[in-house]
Formats: sequence, C-alpha cells, structure tokens
Amino acid sequence: MYYYLSSLSTDWGPLRLFNYITFRAGGAFITAFLIVLLSIPVFLPYFRVHCVQMSPRMDDQPEKPKTPLMGGIFMISAIVIATMLWSKITERALIIFVLSTVALGILGMVDDIIKTKYLRSERDGVRERTKMIVQAIVTVIALYLLYKTHGAVTMQVFFPFSRQPFQFYPELESISVIVPFRYHPLFHLPLWCMPGCLLFMLGFNYLVVAGASNGVNLTDGKDGLAAGCMFIAALAFAVVAYLNGHFEFAAYLGIPYVPQAGEIGVFACAIAGACLGFLWHNTAPASIYMGDTGSLALGGALAMIAIMLAQQLLVPIIGLVFVIETLSVWLQRTSYKLRHGKRIFLRAPIHHHFEMKGIPDNKIVMGFWILAILAAMAGLATLKLR
Amino acid sequence: MYYYLSSLSTDWGPLRLFNYITFRAGGAFITAFLIVLLSIPVFLPYFRVHCVQMSPRMDDQPEKPKTPLMGGIFMISAIVIATMLWSKITERALIIFVLSTVALGILGMVDDIIKTKYLRSERDGVRERTKMIVQAIVTVIALYLLYKTHGAVTMQVFFPFSRQPFQFYPELESISVIVPFRYHPLFHLPLWCMPGCLLFMLGFNYLVVAGASNGVNLTDGKDGLAAGCMFIAALAFAVVAYLNGHFEFAAYLGIPYVPQAGEIGVFACAIAGACLGFLWHNTAPASIYMGDTGSLALGGALAMIAIMLAQQLLVPIIGLVFVIETLSVWLQRTSYKLRHGKRIFLRAPIHHHFEMKGIPDNKIVMGFWILAILAAMAGLATLKLR
Repeated sequence: MYYYLSSLSTDWGPLRLFNYITFRAGGAFITAFLIVLLSIPVFLPYFRVHCVQMSPRMDDQPEKPKTPLMGGIFMISAIVIATMLWSKITERALIIFVLSTVALGILGMVDDIIKTKYLRSERDGVRERTKMIVQAIVTVIALYLLYKTHGAVTMQVFFPFSRQPFQFYPELESISVIVPFRYHPLFHLPLWCMPGCLLFMLGFNYLVVAGASNGVNLTDGKDGLAAGCMFIAALAFAVVAYLNGHFEFAAYLGIPYVPQAGEIGVFACAIAGACLGFLWHNTAPASIYMGDTGSLALGGALAMIAIMLAQQLLVPIIGLVFVIETLSVWLQRTSYKLRHGKRIFLRAPIHHHFEMKGIPDNKIVMGFWILAILAAMAGLATLKLR
Repeated sequence: MYYYLSSLSTDWGPLRLFNYITFRAGGAFITAFLIVLLSIPVFLPYFRVHCVQMSPRMDDQPEKPKTPLMGGIFMISAIVIATMLWSKITERALIIFVLSTVALGILGMVDDIIKTKYLRSERDGVRERTKMIVQAIVTVIALYLLYKTHGAVTMQVFFPFSRQPFQFYPELESISVIVPFRYHPLFHLPLWCMPGCLLFMLGFNYLVVAGASNGVNLTDGKDGLAAGCMFIAALAFAVVAYLNGHFEFAAYLGIPYVPQAGEIGVFACAIAGACLGFLWHNTAPASIYMGDTGSLALGGALAMIAIMLAQQLLVPIIGLVFVIETLSVWLQRTSYKLRHGKRIFLRAPIHHHFEMKGIPDNKIVMGFWILAILAAMAGLATLKLR
C-alpha cells in the first residue's frame, strides 16, 4: 500500500524510496518482525489457558509446564499485514499467495483446535487424508487463479544448472512466461500434449505445495527448529525472487525474468521477518509453538513463491532440512512395513532419533540450522553455476 | 591459489568457474567450515588437558566440567588455509590481512596461555595496556603496508547515507582511491593539511581495529554468542566487499569501486565459514571456547576488511552487538568511578546483566543474534539509501 506513496515523490523527493523493492522488502521484514515480537506477549495469557495441547507433547518431560500451540496465528497475521502494507496490493499473484497461505493456516488451525480441545494422542487431529485433500483443493484453486491472471506461469519449471537463453514468447499473451514448459529443450512436445502437460504440472505443483507444507510440519518438533529453518529458507527465496524480478540480473544469470517477482520478494521478506520475531519466543525454553497453523501455512507459502518463480526444483534444495525430515518418516514407515517391524531410526522424524542418541537439544537445532544455511547457499549457487 | 586454474580454462572449459568471485567465495566458505568442523574433534582431547583455564570461567557453575580455551587457533588456521587456497594470493592486501589476523591471534594466544598456565583470576592475562600497544603496532604496520601497496587507501572514509558521484583521481597514483578523505565535500582541506589528516586517519583506523577487536573479545562470554554474531557480521561484510568490487554495482550504488574487494570478499567468506563450523562445537553446551585467540583475531580481521573498503563507519553499524557490549562495560566503569561505586548494570558486559535478571542463556544468545541480523540488514541498507 505504501508503494503508492511513491507517486507523490514529485511533491516530496524522499517518497521515491517507496518505489524501491529493497526498501519495501526491508519495511515488510521489520513490520512482520515487530508484529510477531510484540503481539505474542499481549495474547500469551489467553493462549496459555485456551490453546494448550491436552496430550503431552514430549512424553519424557512431564514436569515441563504446557506450552501453547497455534503461535502460527501471529505469524500469518503479521505476514498478511506486512504484505498488505508494503507491497503493490493490486498485484493479483500476491492476493492469491496471501489467500492460499491463510487457507492452509485455517486447515492447520482446525487441526490444532482438535488437538487442544479434545483429549487425544499427539498423532491425532485432522486425519492425514483430509489434510491432503484440502491441500489439493487449495493448490488447484490457487494454480487456476494464477493461470488466469499470469497466463502459462503454472506451466513452467526452470531447471537448476541448465542455462537457457533469455527467451520471450509473446504468443502466449503473458509477459511473465520466459521458459514455458513445452519449449524447454528437454521437452520438445507437440501442441496436443498440452492437456497432459497441464495435468502433469498440476500434480507436480501439488507435490511441491504438499511436500513443503508437510515437511515444515514434521520439522516443527524442537524449540526453534522449524522457525529458524523457515527464516533461512524464506530469506534465500527472497534473494531468488529479487534476482528473478530484476531485468539485468535475470538476464545476466540466465534465469527467467518475472516482472512481479520483486513484489513476491517483499512477501518472502515478510515471512522471514515473522519467523525471526517468532524465534525469540520459540527458542528453548519456548513460550509458544507455531503448531500446524504455522507450519502448514509457511510451507505452503514457500511453495507458492517457488511456483510463481518457476523455481519449484529449488524447494528441495533450499528446504533440504524439510526434505530430510520427511524422508526420515517415509523410510521409517517403509522399513517398518517391509521389514516386519524393524526400524531404521530410533524414532522418526530424525530429530527425535538424534535426541534419543543423547545429543543435547540445542546442538540438534544448531546442526539443522547450519545445514539449512549450507542448503540455502547451495540453492543460490545453482542460479550462478550453469 | 585455485584461481590460477582458471588460466587453464582454454584447455577445459569448466575451469573458468575459478574465475568467478562467487564460486571461490563459496569454496572458501565451505573449506573453512569443514576445517573447523572436522579438526576440532581430532585435537579436543589434547586441548582438554592442556588448554583449560585454571580459574573458573563462570563462578556460578562450579560443577560444570572445564571447557578448553583457544579454539580460535582452529578458526585462524582455517581462515588462513581457505584464503590461501581460494583467493588470488598475489593480492598484497590479502597477505597483509592474513598476517595481521595471525599477529592479533598470537597476542590473544599469549593471553590465553597465561590464563591456562598460571592460576590467576579471569580478568588477568596480558595487561590491558600491553594489549593496546600490540594492537597499535599491528595496526600501524598493516596500515603502512596497505599505504605502500594500495596508495592513499588508508586516507579514506566513506560516509554512510551520503551519495558521492563516482570519481577518480589519477594524480594519487592509486586505482583503488575513489573518494580520498581530503576531497570529501565535508572536508575541503588544503594540501598542507595532509600530514595532520594522515595522523588523524591513523588514529581513527586504530580505533576501528582496537574497538572491533576488543568488542568481539567482550562479547565472547556466552556459548555461541560471539561466534554467531561474527558469522552474521562477516557475511554482511562479504556482501559489502562483493558490491565494492563489482564495477557496475558499485557505480549503481554510488560506493567506491575497489578492484581488490572481490578477493577481500573471499577472505570475509572464509571468516564466516570458520565461524559457522565453530558454532557447532561452541553452541551450548560448548565443548570449546574461541578464547582471546579467536576474538582478538576475528575482530581485527573484520576491521581490516572495513578499512580496505573505506567502510570503517559500517563497523559500528553491522557490529552493533559488539558496540553495545563495549558500551555497557564503559558505562559500568564510568558510573562506578563517578557515582561513588554505584553500578548501572548488575554486571558488565551486558549479557551477564541479563543472565542475572534470570533470562535463560539460550534466549540471551538468540536475542543478540536477532539484533546482529537486524544490524547487518541496517548496515547493508545504508549502501542503498542515499
């Protein structure tokens, strides 16, 4: 919203600052950071009473006072407010992002409410199948709206490490399409393949959204773990978005130029700011957890950013920690089924395995953060190395 | 060293990668990270026996097993090796940087050895005056050598928030000088002022080196605190160096173009990598402390980078945490002297104040890290906002 102040810069020069993406990204970061940092203490007494999980979260620490769930509400609110304030809100992609983040957040909130209101085991809440269906519906609606407003943007995947010359296909009536899927050298397909491609891309993008969403959800099991990794990943995607949205940089790096990407960078910075503010309250000893409310929404938001930038394949690279956590669960389940009850890890997700190995919580969290930093750097390196 | 592989790129194309600053910076980061990460466990048993401080480091935790000091040795070795491998070692500025880092590290090591070998109180070690004299000698020699090799580079200060047009003064026979001190609009001085200016700049630069060095030293009082803040500050300075060394970016931002700055960025990345690797071992519960060996050397290295980029005024902005820690000690001492024994803080440096207020160690460290991240972003913002 503040962007529109820049149109008054003829009256007062410094208002031109609101034209700069970097300035507005910084503003969104600080705004989201402060909202989360300052609002949580205000509402914490209420949350301590109403949003505490009935079943013990960690069985081995029964003496620990119960920590409220649903801190994600603060993060989502902060992201929505900061994005509304500091970006061009008329950019439809942003509205779609914000709405799908909120939708996934509501899904997580229902899950959290079931957990807090009804005495069940930790695993319970919304059933897994229900979650997947809701995620699929959100993805399909969001992709359809993105397709309507930004043309064939949902039909793209940009491959890391492959250098594609800067291309522009005006016949697809979209200024955001640089490397449409069917034009990629790996996929020289005739036109009648389009429906199949569309269906494939829909499934592929759903996998990205559901994967990121559930990955963050699984990672959220130690104080500060998910929030810290999300902070790093969001910052990395903010850089990717900035580069994608800068005509010269995009041309220099040979990545698709997406005109709206700068605004998406503002959105990513709001996510990073919200995570940083939340970290203060979420660091051990945590006074609040983000819960499914936060993890499902944040993971989904990250995936939507990647889809809009056609950088879906960067999600498993920058979000390596989330992938490892998800893989550990899959491997454990598969091994349990196929090997007649034998387990690979002492407990999945993998951070519980390290915990049972006797590594202090602090070290586990720091280890995953270090891994997240290295992964983010690797992800950014793929933009340069072609 | 690997840089020279790029000259073979006519024989094998991919070797051109070694020409890229970003690639070599990443290489230096990973190399320093791995050296610190992997070498500490090898030498830890030796350090546990020989490098443990005699006097208790924390009086209130007598039951805690003693943690060895002098972990800085690993960081300095890693930085030197990584810089030698991945940068243009013929760049004289780098050799001066490496040597002055090692010199300050040796000063810190003597301090640590005195602490570990002789049963004295924590405050003891090398006397404060001796430290300052050695720091002054190192600064003067380093500045003199920089002056000899890079001309009037020691005569510059670039002011944040002031936009100076891109200028070039060939009569000063230095390609690195863009905004010589005496040409700055704030200081239109006649030529006979040069000796005075030189003396002023010498004192000013000494203040930056000693301030950063002692600031990091004071900050090093909680597990992971100094290493984490240094990681963030080094990364920020790596970005500043990269921008200073990129002709187009420097011209676009209106900051001085320093041709060697890219190599300095490689050096800064090596520092960041060493800090990240050290963090794993230094996070609570720490298995090793960096000691004065690490803190004096790292602070000095950061200051030297800033001097070479003429961005000395960014040191107190990006290194805000170190400034706050130093100020808290000064204020405490001044108040104690002037107000007849009255104290401002329960204990200085300020992280001990928070500790005595009952804030958990983890939260204190996270709070300072968050502050360091915000400070780094503010520092980078000064490059853009003019």
